[in-house]
Amino acid sequence: MNQQNVTETVSQSNSVLTSLEQFKSWAKENGFIYPSSEIYGGFAAVYDYGHYGILLKNNIQRLWEKSMVQEREDVYLLDSGIFMHPKTWVASGHVGGFEDVLVEDKKTHKRFRADHLVEEWFEKHGKSVDMDKKTAAELSELIKANNIKSPDGNELTEPRSFNLLVKSNMGTTDASFNNENVTYLRGETCQGIYLEYKNFRDTLRPKLPFGIAQVGKAFRNEIVARQFIFRTREFEQMEMQYFHNPKDKEKLFDMWKNERMNWLVNVLGISSENLRFKKHEKLVFYATAAFDIEYNFKTLGGFKELEGIHDRGDYDLTQHSKFSGEKLDYFDQESGERFTPHIMETSVGLNRLLMMVLEEGWVVEEIVNAKGEKDKRIVLKIKPELSPIKIAILPLSRKIELQTKAKEVLNILKGTYQTQYDETASIGKRYRRQDEIGTPYCLTVDFDSLTDNSVTVRDRDTMKQERIEISQLKDYFKLKL
Amino acid sequence: MNQQNVTETVSQSNSVLTSLEQFKSWAKENGFIYPSSEIYGGFAAVYDYGHYGILLKNNIQRLWEKSMVQEREDVYLLDSGIFMHPKTWVASGHVGGFEDVLVEDKKTHKRFRADHLVEEWFEKHGKSVDMDKKTAAELSELIKANNIKSPDGNELTEPRSFNLLVKSNMGTTDASFNNENVTYLRGETCQGIYLEYKNFRDTLRPKLPFGIAQVGKAFRNEIVARQFIFRTREFEQMEMQYFHNPKDKEKLFDMWKNERMNWLVNVLGISSENLRFKKHEKLVFYATAAFDIEYNFKTLGGFKELEGIHDRGDYDLTQHSKFSGEKLDYFDQESGERFTPHIMETSVGLNRLLMMVLEEGWVVEEIVNAKGEKDKRIVLKIKPELSPIKIAILPLSRKIELQTKAKEVLNILKGTYQTQYDETASIGKRYRRQDEIGTPYCLTVDFDSLTDNSVTVRDRDTMKQERIEISQLKDYFKLKL
Repeated sequence: MNQQNVTETVSQSNSVLTSLEQFKSWAKENGFIYPSSEIYGGFAAVYDYGHYGILLKNNIQRLWEKSMVQEREDVYLLDSGIFMHPKTWVASGHVGGFEDVLVEDKKTHKRFRADHLVEEWFEKHGKSVDMDKKTAAELSELIKANNIKSPDGNELTEPRSFNLLVKSNMGTTDASFNNENVTYLRGETCQGIYLEYKNFRDTLRPKLPFGIAQVGKAFRNEIVARQFIFRTREFEQMEMQYFHNPKDKEKLFDMWKNERMNWLVNVLGISSENLRFKKHEKLVFYATAAFDIEYNFKTLGGFKELEGIHDRGDYDLTQHSKFSGEKLDYFDQESGERFTPHIMETSVGLNRLLMMVLEEGWVVEEIVNAKGEKDKRIVLKIKPELSPIKIAILPLSRKIELQTKAKEVLNILKGTYQTQYDETASIGKRYRRQDEIGTPYCLTVDFDSLTDNSVTVRDRDTMKQERIEISQLKDYFKLKL
Repeated sequence: MNQQNVTETVSQSNSVLTSLEQFKSWAKENGFIYPSSEIYGGFAAVYDYGHYGILLKNNIQRLWEKSMVQEREDVYLLDSGIFMHPKTWVASGHVGGFEDVLVEDKKTHKRFRADHLVEEWFEKHGKSVDMDKKTAAELSELIKANNIKSPDGNELTEPRSFNLLVKSNMGTTDASFNNENVTYLRGETCQGIYLEYKNFRDTLRPKLPFGIAQVGKAFRNEIVARQFIFRTREFEQMEMQYFHNPKDKEKLFDMWKNERMNWLVNVLGISSENLRFKKHEKLVFYATAAFDIEYNFKTLGGFKELEGIHDRGDYDLTQHSKFSGEKLDYFDQESGERFTPHIMETSVGLNRLLMMVLEEGWVVEEIVNAKGEKDKRIVLKIKPELSPIKIAILPLSRKIELQTKAKEVLNILKGTYQTQYDETASIGKRYRRQDEIGTPYCLTVDFDSLTDNSVTVRDRDTMKQERIEISQLKDYFKLKL
């Protein structure tokens, strides 16, 4: 075993991420998430994903696709456009009713979501209030009755509704841009699925029950509270719409509740005490059952919605059939029945999953380093399947022989794994860097490697090291990763 | 060998895809590509990708990311927002000059790109014309001089410029939506890379030369000719921006030209006679060298642009530095030099690659079927790495024992491969269906399977069949796929 290498042990593991500000700057400094357009002073509520952020996000997405599509026989994949025919949003009810209620500070003219201000006031005063689907009039009453002020202590304007759909001039070459030729960016990805129900039915001829799954961006012009990537105006949804015969409803709803909770626990590795179901007591008019899965976001002060599992009944296909004039039904050959399928959806925010994974994995540990001194490390203890970098290859120094040997190792592994080659700074510092971005394995190439053709493999969590022959690395990682 | 199974041989391979209309209906009927919002009469120049389309598109994207990022040490990945600070598009020159020149048929009021009408006229009259970057005035002169009419034979209006950037009210909660609070959907993904240059430099501290790669949607309000997914208003780019010291320019430009051409040939399996470089004779003012890679799209009548390899000089960082006031330079520790890096880009359309892969792979073959009769099959001869479905599992009949055995086989393979289970129709029809979507292997589970625990594996291209033990399937496909 090589003397110059660093062996470390954990003495205490404690601190977790609780401050949103600390989370934001950590995510930026470590190349996960940058605020958009920073050089221009920022662009509100849009975030960019750096090298480690997008690699991690891709891993989450691909694990979802694997569980939802590849490993099932009854779910198909779709990638529909962000733009659809504008009637889509009339039929869906978004043009008429997809609204937030906003109030303005009369002095500063800052805008806020009225329901958020009311909720905060009640929380601060130790009272409970049900904020589900409050109208502008109801919010106005609550504000007056309790004399609620803006966060800066000023009077508020009357609450008014604001439509969340983002408008555009896509598809028009008119110079003028007005309300007549307006088109919308999708406010949710599922509408694209409903529009393609007919093509899937007619070209793939699947039997009920079957699902169509989609990953993609959606856009909402929300009055955004400062919640990092939890609520942004541009965001990514992973939605699955499950078309079924209503007589199978109960069984299927339970199946999807179980499937989705198990995925979070078993595939993403989230501890089950940080997850819970929350039943919607007040349902939107078309829904027959709705549960959310909530995650205990410590940086947001507690349990918040992560995923929705909703039974939408036959509302969506009925509406689009009515507005388009097309028959969106299903003929069951066995029973001879013709009917409009009901839809059950699972809808999760990809960005929220990413935020959860980072929060859940982030740990500060006190360790004893190779010199016997107390030290500290931040380590991202996420499942290796999620890690942006699977293997880091670290020559002990910048000596040409070590570089050459390290590149040889790199070339063996990079075709199969996302790797990283790093030759800067001391080996201890490089371990810290890899720990912090969640790399499960570091390979150190040292002077012994030149004669024994082996490298030291260090495990992120245990920090234990073992010596592995270079020729055995591929087999070694086939079992580990 | 099982008597009930079908053995077939190729007698002739000839017909390829030349008609765009045939291509479109084939792509729809086979679940690859659907026109958007069909139930509402369509939404111009946006397409949705069905189950096989998105699986194939994902495979292309992931092979690009693998070659461009995973297998290199000098390229990082980014996922920046579709929305950026509006100043981005002023600095880039898009707000001022990102324009198409359009003309209108005076009778029908249909709109056309003036350059396309002029080009078509010259082609029809057997003359050549250089249509690169023609102004509205130049186009007007050409139309008048040659008395060019609309496709319906009517007079045309004066050409006028129309900005291609798609406008929106994203980020504003004003009820009014006017030119003052307008924000743009990105017209190209690379601007997001320039805006994040500083964060990458400061957080990852890479040495020059290094690249930042991104896959994502871009939007242009083009006057779209009917070219299927070749030119759409909503489309996907895969761009890589390579930051470098201008002294290394020549060597690096050659490297990227080679890299990209080799990727198309070796990774996507495109025959090199269908690809060529085209040098830009007329460069945009900031570029110092520009080549396109063109593909011979038979459904579009010949060679068309697929990918651009452009040296953009220091234009982009200089402009964004000027407009933002931020220093976007680089300090070279070895030489002590401080300078603005130059940028070389490789920019390819993901949708165009998909179109190319389908065209290149599509073949009609005359075959002799199991009964000795002449038959015909459409087969998508694409590389197995690209195939949407890798393995189809086909029980010979719907007998419960065969279904059970087939599901057993399915469960062995579906964790590793995108599979498909199909028990409908005759075995011959099911082979046809899998051939047409490019599935490299079909496994048939027959009555012998119940006793010999083996299945028949059929190869898409040769149609040869071999008997493989179920317990050996994983190892068999490890070598094949």
